[in-house]
Amino acid sequence: MNVQTDFSKLEVGYDVPAVPGMDEKDIQTPCLVLDLDALERNIKKMGDYAKAHGMRHRAHGKMHKSVDVLRLQERLGAACGVCCQKVSEAEVFVRGGIKDVMVSNQVTDPAKIDRLARLPKLGSRILVCVDDPENVKALSDAAIKHGTKLEVLVEIDCGAGRCGVSTTQDVVNIAKLIDAAPNLKFAGIQAYQGAMQHLDLYADRKAKLDVAIAQVADAVQGLKSNGLECDIVGGGGTGSYYFESGSNVYNELQCGSYAFMDVDYGRILDKEGKRIDQGEWENALFILTTVMSHSKADKAIVDAGLKAQSVDSGLPKVYGRDDVEYLKCSDEHGVVADPKGALKVNEKLRLVPGHCDPTCNVHDWYVGVRGGKVETVWPVSARGKAY
Amino acid sequence: MNVQTDFSKLEVGYDVPAVPGMDEKDIQTPCLVLDLDALERNIKKMGDYAKAHGMRHRAHGKMHKSVDVLRLQERLGAACGVCCQKVSEAEVFVRGGIKDVMVSNQVTDPAKIDRLARLPKLGSRILVCVDDPENVKALSDAAIKHGTKLEVLVEIDCGAGRCGVSTTQDVVNIAKLIDAAPNLKFAGIQAYQGAMQHLDLYADRKAKLDVAIAQVADAVQGLKSNGLECDIVGGGGTGSYYFESGSNVYNELQCGSYAFMDVDYGRILDKEGKRIDQGEWENALFILTTVMSHSKADKAIVDAGLKAQSVDSGLPKVYGRDDVEYLKCSDEHGVVADPKGALKVNEKLRLVPGHCDPTCNVHDWYVGVRGGKVETVWPVSARGKAY
Repeated sequence: MNVQTDFSKLEVGYDVPAVPGMDEKDIQTPCLVLDLDALERNIKKMGDYAKAHGMRHRAHGKMHKSVDVLRLQERLGAACGVCCQKVSEAEVFVRGGIKDVMVSNQVTDPAKIDRLARLPKLGSRILVCVDDPENVKALSDAAIKHGTKLEVLVEIDCGAGRCGVSTTQDVVNIAKLIDAAPNLKFAGIQAYQGAMQHLDLYADRKAKLDVAIAQVADAVQGLKSNGLECDIVGGGGTGSYYFESGSNVYNELQCGSYAFMDVDYGRILDKEGKRIDQGEWENALFILTTVMSHSKADKAIVDAGLKAQSVDSGLPKVYGRDDVEYLKCSDEHGVVADPKGALKVNEKLRLVPGHCDPTCNVHDWYVGVRGGKVETVWPVSARGKAY
Repeated sequence: MNVQTDFSKLEVGYDVPAVPGMDEKDIQTPCLVLDLDALERNIKKMGDYAKAHGMRHRAHGKMHKSVDVLRLQERLGAACGVCCQKVSEAEVFVRGGIKDVMVSNQVTDPAKIDRLARLPKLGSRILVCVDDPENVKALSDAAIKHGTKLEVLVEIDCGAGRCGVSTTQDVVNIAKLIDAAPNLKFAGIQAYQGAMQHLDLYADRKAKLDVAIAQVADAVQGLKSNGLECDIVGGGGTGSYYFESGSNVYNELQCGSYAFMDVDYGRILDKEGKRIDQGEWENALFILTTVMSHSKADKAIVDAGLKAQSVDSGLPKVYGRDDVEYLKCSDEHGVVADPKGALKVNEKLRLVPGHCDPTCNVHDWYVGVRGGKVETVWPVSARGKAY
């Protein structure tokens, strides 16, 4: 599974936070820790769900940016491939040997289009999304230049209000252009409803998805009337995958956060009103941090601040502890309320990140632990690959 | 100046966002861009100020994490060395040839202490801060083990409420322990008032600094009474350096953000009530971003989202444009209000980041531009070095 990092060439601390075989207590912090048992259970569960519901699961690699995690999703979770958001991420997954790679986003910059059109030469199927008729010709020209084939989906804005077209007529118009363009293949529809994933209530999420599904169904029908079949109707996240799975419209899921979980996702409620991090998914990702100062009796200062996480969606939670609370952070420090003075200098805490995606993006390594021992150290392969 | 990156081995796009000689319009985005003229003026201005006021300037490398920028601060800004917050940052600066390196923070983890104590072997002066008597012995033992000398400052909490001791008695007690410990040298006091740097009003910042300066003066006097001289009394940031400089107590400044500027710092007001980014300092750091979708008439979607910046202190501003506004962001996208439809797909915008330190930390490269051309591409040398 490991991408064959040569740990003999790396210095613990400077280069890597840990090496395989090390005790968990010796890991240099702050760093990302994966509970491998929990991760594997999450991955298997989503894979089993997708299979049982006749869906493909194209795991979202933008969340973890890791070839190793993606391979685990292929092996244990029956993932059919990966989706990601940037050409540079696609480059990482293709070079890492992933054979079916979708950029679930627009690629409009000429140099990026050129890079994308080169990728099929490395032996992977490459898919990309379009919401602008002018983009179709640019993609086709680049694929012709490189003698490659790109598969192209039309992106529908089904409520996120970001990229994507809004009407079936627009979908059909662009799909026809794709279908007619040399070296492009029309592959279907991308319709991810991102804005609703984090609504607390199941019923609120369902209401949003019902609208989206109706909109996508209309587009699929419109395409069919024009002789265009969708190989892929893709979308679905950790807060919605059961809606897309039961829709008879979608056929591919694109879940990401389910594998790691975070505070912001964990608080949403399932059909029974239970938090999804209390049964549906397990916390598998943690920021391991160390108490580095306790000069105030009721406050511990830990070494994980803004450079060890993203706080865009709220602060992290201290895992498994009700007696202490992560209160605030600055660049390199976190302040943990410790009213009973329970914490000691050099004690380690596991933090559940507020938002996993941009938190993973600031780290270079995942330290995989099992039974108190470091089992794997995986690079965050596409870290910083934003362009 | 450049740390001799071999660009012939790097692929534009995948490895680097740009190469020297390239037109600014061809840079792959999102990425960090430095306006080299503005950067050099900022650096020279702070260096000149420190010299004119009899202060040393130990530039804060935690902000930019770049050996190249630090060398510019030494060359144009008379910086006497660097301060940083993590052992891994110190390792980067020492290996990059910087000869005077302070970790302006506590180092308590045994493995990190060991790493720190090894660093003087590479030929640099190494300083570190302490706020816990027990930490002194651990530092001494490690320095003995490696046959090195560490210079140690006592950190005073002068209002930030984070690390540091609060009373002169505590300062003296720890300083005596340092002075008596083999292989350690008592170097002085670290007293950075971080919490006040971002207060809008000059008078409010002055009031906080007056208290801090009195506290530090008392500690210096207390040390003197005990026969302990401070080689360094260090502190001072971009929002306060003029107070420390006129204090007759401090002798070293530790400014960081002045060199790059950001939205959160830029809004604070100088003595005359003018924003400090409108005269005192120039915006030298930008996130270059590209419009990648404009399927809604009044909104442009750009390629810089949460993975291209930290929004902990607020959203970025579009530089030099009053007609468009960065409204919100998700992981890989930013939404820019464009009420007049002025923006076009593939148009590039410069964003002033909300908070420079954690924004620099998510990027691998600084692209230095001058006169519309890429002049330098510098690695963010200590990116991700948090442990």
